[in-house]
Amino acid sequence: TDVSARDLEQRIRILEEKLETSKKGGVTASTNGRSLTFNGDDFSFQVGGRLQLDAAAYDAEQDGNEFGNGTRVRRLFLDVRGSVYEHWNYRFQYDFARPGGSDTSARGIRDAWIQYTGFSPAITVGQFKEPFGLEHLASSLHTTFIERGLTNAFTPDRRIGIGLSDNGQHWTYAVGAFGETAEGDVASEGNEGWDITGRVTYTPVNGDGKVVHLGLAGRQHTPEDSTNSLRFRERPESNVTDVRLIDTSTLNDVEDIQFLGLEAAAVFGPLSLQGERVDTQVSRDSGADDLDLSAWYAYASLFLTGESRPYKNGVFDRIKPKSTVGKGGIGAWEVALRYSEADLTDGSVIGGEEENLTLGVNWYATQNIRFAANYIKVLELDRPGSQYDDEKLDSVVLRAQIDF
Amino acid sequence: TDVSARDLEQRIRILEEKLETSKKGGVTASTNGRSLTFNGDDFSFQVGGRLQLDAAAYDAEQDGNEFGNGTRVRRLFLDVRGSVYEHWNYRFQYDFARPGGSDTSARGIRDAWIQYTGFSPAITVGQFKEPFGLEHLASSLHTTFIERGLTNAFTPDRRIGIGLSDNGQHWTYAVGAFGETAEGDVASEGNEGWDITGRVTYTPVNGDGKVVHLGLAGRQHTPEDSTNSLRFRERPESNVTDVRLIDTSTLNDVEDIQFLGLEAAAVFGPLSLQGERVDTQVSRDSGADDLDLSAWYAYASLFLTGESRPYKNGVFDRIKPKSTVGKGGIGAWEVALRYSEADLTDGSVIGGEEENLTLGVNWYATQNIRFAANYIKVLELDRPGSQYDDEKLDSVVLRAQIDF
Amino acid sequence: TDVSARDLEQRIRILEEKLETSKKGGVTASTNGRSLTFNGDDFSFQVGGRLQLDAAAYDAEQDGNEFGNGTRVRRLFLDVRGSVYEHWNYRFQYDFARPGGSDTSARGIRDAWIQYTGFSPAITVGQFKEPFGLEHLASSLHTTFIERGLTNAFTPDRRIGIGLSDNGQHWTYAVGAFGETAEGDVASEGNEGWDITGRVTYTPVNGDGKVVHLGLAGRQHTPEDSTNSLRFRERPESNVTDVRLIDTSTLNDVEDIQFLGLEAAAVFGPLSLQGERVDTQVSRDSGADDLDLSAWYAYASLFLTGESRPYKNGVFDRIKPKSTVGKGGIGAWEVALRYSEADLTDGSVIGGEEENLTLGVNWYATQNIRFAANYIKVLELDRPGSQYDDEKLDSVVLRAQIDF
Repeated sequence: TDVSARDLEQRIRILEEKLETSKKGGVTASTNGRSLTFNGDDFSFQVGGRLQLDAAAYDAEQDGNEFGNGTRVRRLFLDVRGSVYEHWNYRFQYDFARPGGSDTSARGIRDAWIQYTGFSPAITVGQFKEPFGLEHLASSLHTTFIERGLTNAFTPDRRIGIGLSDNGQHWTYAVGAFGETAEGDVASEGNEGWDITGRVTYTPVNGDGKVVHLGLAGRQHTPEDSTNSLRFRERPESNVTDVRLIDTSTLNDVEDIQFLGLEAAAVFGPLSLQGERVDTQVSRDSGADDLDLSAWYAYASLFLTGESRPYKNGVFDRIKPKSTVGKGGIGAWEVALRYSEADLTDGSVIGGEEENLTLGVNWYATQNIRFAANYIKVLELDRPGSQYDDEKLDSVVLRAQIDF
Repeated sequence: TDVSARDLEQRIRILEEKLETSKKGGVTASTNGRSLTFNGDDFSFQVGGRLQLDAAAYDAEQDGNEFGNGTRVRRLFLDVRGSVYEHWNYRFQYDFARPGGSDTSARGIRDAWIQYTGFSPAITVGQFKEPFGLEHLASSLHTTFIERGLTNAFTPDRRIGIGLSDNGQHWTYAVGAFGETAEGDVASEGNEGWDITGRVTYTPVNGDGKVVHLGLAGRQHTPEDSTNSLRFRERPESNVTDVRLIDTSTLNDVEDIQFLGLEAAAVFGPLSLQGERVDTQVSRDSGADDLDLSAWYAYASLFLTGESRPYKNGVFDRIKPKSTVGKGGIGAWEVALRYSEADLTDGSVIGGEEENLTLGVNWYATQNIRFAANYIKVLELDRPGSQYDDEKLDSVVLRAQIDF
Repeated sequence: TDVSARDLEQRIRILEEKLETSKKGGVTASTNGRSLTFNGDDFSFQVGGRLQLDAAAYDAEQDGNEFGNGTRVRRLFLDVRGSVYEHWNYRFQYDFARPGGSDTSARGIRDAWIQYTGFSPAITVGQFKEPFGLEHLASSLHTTFIERGLTNAFTPDRRIGIGLSDNGQHWTYAVGAFGETAEGDVASEGNEGWDITGRVTYTPVNGDGKVVHLGLAGRQHTPEDSTNSLRFRERPESNVTDVRLIDTSTLNDVEDIQFLGLEAAAVFGPLSLQGERVDTQVSRDSGADDLDLSAWYAYASLFLTGESRPYKNGVFDRIKPKSTVGKGGIGAWEVALRYSEADLTDGSVIGGEEENLTLGVNWYATQNIRFAANYIKVLELDRPGSQYDDEKLDSVVLRAQIDF
């Protein structure tokens, strides 16, 4: 047995060495069913993406108004993110389906930033979402309805800038200074526009399936030199069509704009409520009218299968179905109803007033595959002088979505 | 020796734990020499791509006809695909080299779909190839010649839709309803065009190196509202030039179009034969002529190094050389000859009649690296009134290709 | 103890089998803190990218000259490369931030090539940088200043072609024949332009922190048929603006152009010197003047933290800080000063003469995260007849950069 023991020890030593060698790369891979993550000693790296496919049918009330039944790839993202050593994060996200414009390539750039978390607050540099709006800040993967409500007419979207952010169990804040978007102002040589934007949220109740959220955000926008212009407009909560029922057209002589956003939301188990209001004050010179524009929405959502909308750091997050299709389950089922209103008319600017009612059904087959159907009824459209005045459009929109 | 045994057992226990820990990620990676695949317990994820580089020289017979000698990146794909739980698949493919148009970003979107295989047939939603045409459905990586034959003038390409498909050892079928392509109809607001397309194949002989394939496909196309127009045209089996020798120009007042496709192919060891015919019936209103257009090709291919063209589920697949360059081998060598004909002339529409002869040589250095040379002779070009009438063009095209 | 030994042997056998199984994929992953590499038995595969974010403020001396303060995503690369069997390499690199043009999609294609290293020299086919210019050939990640010097007006950039290259400890050479860039000449049907380009370098001293480099390069360019035109112009060492202070406008009737480049560089520990000169001879027909144009720069760089600029195979390479932010260090700090001059005026062509002085500070927080600030002073701008004549612009440019 002495011989045998020496023999065994030899085999164990070889195993130990092999195991050490196989770990030398210092990288382990894991997946959460969506994307793939690699973790090295000092680094992590994650590759993912998202695909949203839409089909829509429109029923116009007035002859001559065409909205274009059809299909569309709504979003097709590639998404790379990672961390470097202890305190550095980065993210790069590109949308291959982002429609045209003067510089289509750069238009597809979405998140593109570097973050340092060695201090509190964290510092972020690059292109990222301005901290404004509860629905705007939720990922398009997790919005309750297929498209955001009419407050989206005032959404700042992502811009290149620098920001500070921090959060606790019951609060978050974020503030930043921003220039234009990645595709903005490459060739025209006036100065870019810029923004100062900030948001605070307070969550007195923040438990599992029990949330009360309050939010307040402000944004000061100074437009770019070269055009000195701006435009607010919005599609009828469906992006297969390119028609905007409300549209201020180009606003000239804009000096600056203030945006004020108010948010409230609550979750009681499978039921949740959410509402938001944005007020916009446009100051103009050269004798043009100042404008007061506004929009708001409110909605209720109910999970028939008992899930709760998850909330994290001031925004709503990914739904995890209690059972999964493909693993013997039926997924999660949600119904929701939203009222949404925007008023883009003030003084001599007749952008229009729109009131929408949207009924939505979501089927979360797995935590990363969702099918949605929305019926959108325009209750009221008051835009005198436009071909769309009084157009009480009915729309049915379908979406298939996966993120990976 | 008792002490020694306890000691050894201790070391074995540590090894067992370490091995368990190192497997915790639940992901293993593998590569087939082309792309990289990760398999987790419930998920797989694969990243790949393809690169095709072309150079071409043209010899026009008539003065004043210029075809543009030069180089081109023909295709540059990024390709992500995967599966989620037991029955869900997805794929996203983007072509960075896809040339311009009104919306260049979305034009690059190729495959972009979600598939559920829990039923038989499988259900696919998204953008994918309409099931029509043996050469069209083969990957551009595996076509015998650098470009597809003149039947390609009638190729439906990929469109956004929903499809059903199934297959057995001796048959396949696929059927689908489709809207437009991803870049189609974003801004113009008539309804999109749509298609119903179906294909069945029968393979009485389907063995290793021995295949007899028969196929039949039909497609009904209704054009979009806004333009109500269509155009058939085709380059001379070489895409470095932008000249189309045959071109119907825009066809107005099109009501609908029926396409009928017939396919036959056979493999006998290193020799294979393949042929296809497409008949197209354009119905027009407002007094415009109805049109009968058609195209066909036939070719033979021979592997000098003894490989056979592999066939799988109704299409031809990747060649695996018997020996590999870089592992002491010489790769696979193939010669092939194709006759190809298209007739785009009927009634008042003089799109032209073209007959081509193409001689091709393929060198498959490895299973994912191919070099090809094609000589294309236009035997006949009958298009009265066009500058290209009677242009018996000679072309030499070279391609280098890798997929990863 | 006999039983115990048999027992232990059993456990060892299971471990050995498990370890074998876990390695069956044949792939191991590793990261260098930037990108991720997978190595299989016959294959490697690497995914990475780069992000460069710029902000700039301009102070024009003359009223009416606007340069456009603002922000920009300067580069956003996705980068895939790998090897197949023993002798095949490939690389595919796309820049999502590359600004517009007639075919924006293809414009983003950067490296896209296949290489065979089974012979000496190595053979490369595809799109890659023409071998010309020390600063041009360095990755944009590793240039000492935010933008390259004014010699960049004559940079050939990447083109589609075939090249041979080889190197030893004290020398390198590279030679190639090239057509146009990937986005060049898709639609216009004259022949493409083409280049023959070659470069040799000699490094009599090539040690750690001690380098003497000499280089000589030549390029013969024949322009494309269709436009028969060319243009030399350059931004003021800052790419947030689109204004070019010097610009020959389109040069017609160009027959061919010869470029001659001379390079010298030296490293002595933390100090390095580098200089380059390009002479350009434009031969024109139809009675248009022949032109002699030129540009040169010289700079010095000093690492305050003691690092040395690394040199490899005829170009400068990535800085590795001696200490790293996020691992208790302060990173690497470098100061540098460059003088740069271009003369685009000859005969009747008044492209302008520019002299710049640039002061740069680089902070390499980690080996893949860099922050840079440049102050650029236009010392002289002599371009009679242009609105920019005598415009002694001051610019401040900031950059944040990560590569992954």
